[in-house]
Amino acid sequence: MSTVLEGLMVPVVGAPMAGGPSTVELARAVSGAGGLGVLAGANLTLEALAERVEQLRAGVGVGGLFGVNIFLPTAGPDPDDADLAAALAAHLAALDRWALRFGVTRGEARWDDDGWRAKVDWLVEHPVPVVTFHFGTPAREMVDSLHAVGTEVWTTVTSRAEAVGAAACGLNALIVQGREAGGHRGLFTNGADDSVDDEPGLLALLRLVQSVTDLPLVAAGGLVHGADVAAVLVAGARAAQLGTAFLLTPEAGTSASHRAAVATDRPTALTRAFSGRPARAVRNELLDELTATAPAAYPQLNRAAQPVRAASAAAGDEAAVALWAGQTHHLARALPAGELVALVTAEAREAVARVQAALG
Amino acid sequence: MSTVLEGLMVPVVGAPMAGGPSTVELARAVSGAGGLGVLAGANLTLEALAERVEQLRAGVGVGGLFGVNIFLPTAGPDPDDADLAAALAAHLAALDRWALRFGVTRGEARWDDDGWRAKVDWLVEHPVPVVTFHFGTPAREMVDSLHAVGTEVWTTVTSRAEAVGAAACGLNALIVQGREAGGHRGLFTNGADDSVDDEPGLLALLRLVQSVTDLPLVAAGGLVHGADVAAVLVAGARAAQLGTAFLLTPEAGTSASHRAAVATDRPTALTRAFSGRPARAVRNELLDELTATAPAAYPQLNRAAQPVRAASAAAGDEAAVALWAGQTHHLARALPAGELVALVTAEAREAVARVQAALG
Repeated sequence: MSTVLEGLMVPVVGAPMAGGPSTVELARAVSGAGGLGVLAGANLTLEALAERVEQLRAGVGVGGLFGVNIFLPTAGPDPDDADLAAALAAHLAALDRWALRFGVTRGEARWDDDGWRAKVDWLVEHPVPVVTFHFGTPAREMVDSLHAVGTEVWTTVTSRAEAVGAAACGLNALIVQGREAGGHRGLFTNGADDSVDDEPGLLALLRLVQSVTDLPLVAAGGLVHGADVAAVLVAGARAAQLGTAFLLTPEAGTSASHRAAVATDRPTALTRAFSGRPARAVRNELLDELTATAPAAYPQLNRAAQPVRAASAAAGDEAAVALWAGQTHHLARALPAGELVALVTAEAREAVARVQAALG
Repeated sequence: MSTVLEGLMVPVVGAPMAGGPSTVELARAVSGAGGLGVLAGANLTLEALAERVEQLRAGVGVGGLFGVNIFLPTAGPDPDDADLAAALAAHLAALDRWALRFGVTRGEARWDDDGWRAKVDWLVEHPVPVVTFHFGTPAREMVDSLHAVGTEVWTTVTSRAEAVGAAACGLNALIVQGREAGGHRGLFTNGADDSVDDEPGLLALLRLVQSVTDLPLVAAGGLVHGADVAAVLVAGARAAQLGTAFLLTPEAGTSASHRAAVATDRPTALTRAFSGRPARAVRNELLDELTATAPAAYPQLNRAAQPVRAASAAAGDEAAVALWAGQTHHLARALPAGELVALVTAEAREAVARVQAALG
């Protein structure tokens, strides 16, 4: 059901990584090495996204494979939820203190839909090989309109229940995101989740998802070495999506603070502190201060925190930078992205051959 | 460093599963199929353990491989911790209500060390191929005394930091337990853990542990299919430890309530409610009532809850049964244990061969 996955020379998909690390150069390097480069489409104007897509399209050449990632909108705030309003106000007051520290003004805590529909409309008019979604599934009509122009549609799932929902929407593939992953979890809803302890690790999630769908799967979450890539292929995935593994490549737009933190072995945590949605980052001062109280208010917190995060990074002070990273971040390698794809592929072959020989 | 792992015909280790599921028959069946059966030694008298070990020894025959698992003691309660005392009192009051419901008296909430030292002394006098530990690492002298009688020593780790500690103790292998696993997590301490969100999934943990030690690894957590076993081998483990996968075998001592719950697709959660230490179980009434408030008080809660859990199981009412299970529990297969080992091995070979062919 996915000719793109079948057509990849190597089973490596680049994670989109909105908010800095995603660049045309990184996506081009991954595609150029035989994998699938994916451009982040979130938190960009339509014009900026269109420019990047056309640069990438030119870069990969005719017939070249690449993808564009779109964040689906999160439901707007309930105006009658007084607890949420109070938690949001407290969080914004804290962000005001952080803004003062870095000499900036925090952003407006507004809800918006990231202009996602206009972005998809543009992608229907200027078709790309794959559109991947995050935070849910698009309506069947939108999937059909992308299919009609030859574009594959994938989305991200983090549970068996989400896979059941996604499989009913006519998608071409599912990105199976384990709890190990850095950055935003692709959860379909942003509400309070009392079953947080049941969030599966990647291997378990691959097994659970395969029990409900035959769709081709792309595995994501904590994969940094070729043996990890080979492991998810053996477990049933068609390809592995690597994000954190590429953060230290020269092609990535990762800030200096972010690079420095990724290279350490400091712990990570899941937090709503930077954006209002659960995401995994290396623990730092802002995360430790605000994780316990941050409300489910995406993208309001994301908009409010953005100038603070940017000023922190510009000051070379990591304290308020969103240090998105998966659980194995300190094993990321600072190599050119194309070399990294080749190395990972060689490691994957070696790992499989070793076990093949041992199992007989 | 582990001649036992090198000597296994198939890379499958049975998880010990104290408290019911562990039987001589199950361990014998796993060893008989070429894997490594492991007998649970916790929550048994020395006499009962000794009897089981000798039955198993006779069952596997001369030169047969098997292991015995020992729970290391958890630090006793701090008599000055008033918060802990209050939480324990509240939990015991709740257990009294549960005991009333099932017409029994709850157990005494006493701390003890499970007679672990006498059990190890006996194992030194009556040597077995492998002793595996849970909840920490034994002192170097104890490792040496087991080595001196030809016994290998393994322990369970759940983080990179624990692996560093364990690797310094002269062990032969590490059991790497991902957050997906059912039953008690092998955490070295039972204190409040503010970094709970950083607990790695199995694949990430395997990668992290390999970054700090060259010891042979046995991977555990959510593995139910041969492709999962093959995946952890490819990721660098020497064998896979399966627990939940064996819960529905006829050889297991799993109660009827427990079997019924494992076969459903109900969610699991990590909880201290049944024992005072974090463990994963299928959610049920007692778990949902007491997880949020259960204190870190092992084995006091375990001793107090035991009669309630037993009475609940005997009544055929799962409400207060500790339904230990990993995150993929509903995919466990009700086959004789030896057949299951053979099936898993065949699936593992097939999964590796498929990827070998695809990667070229």
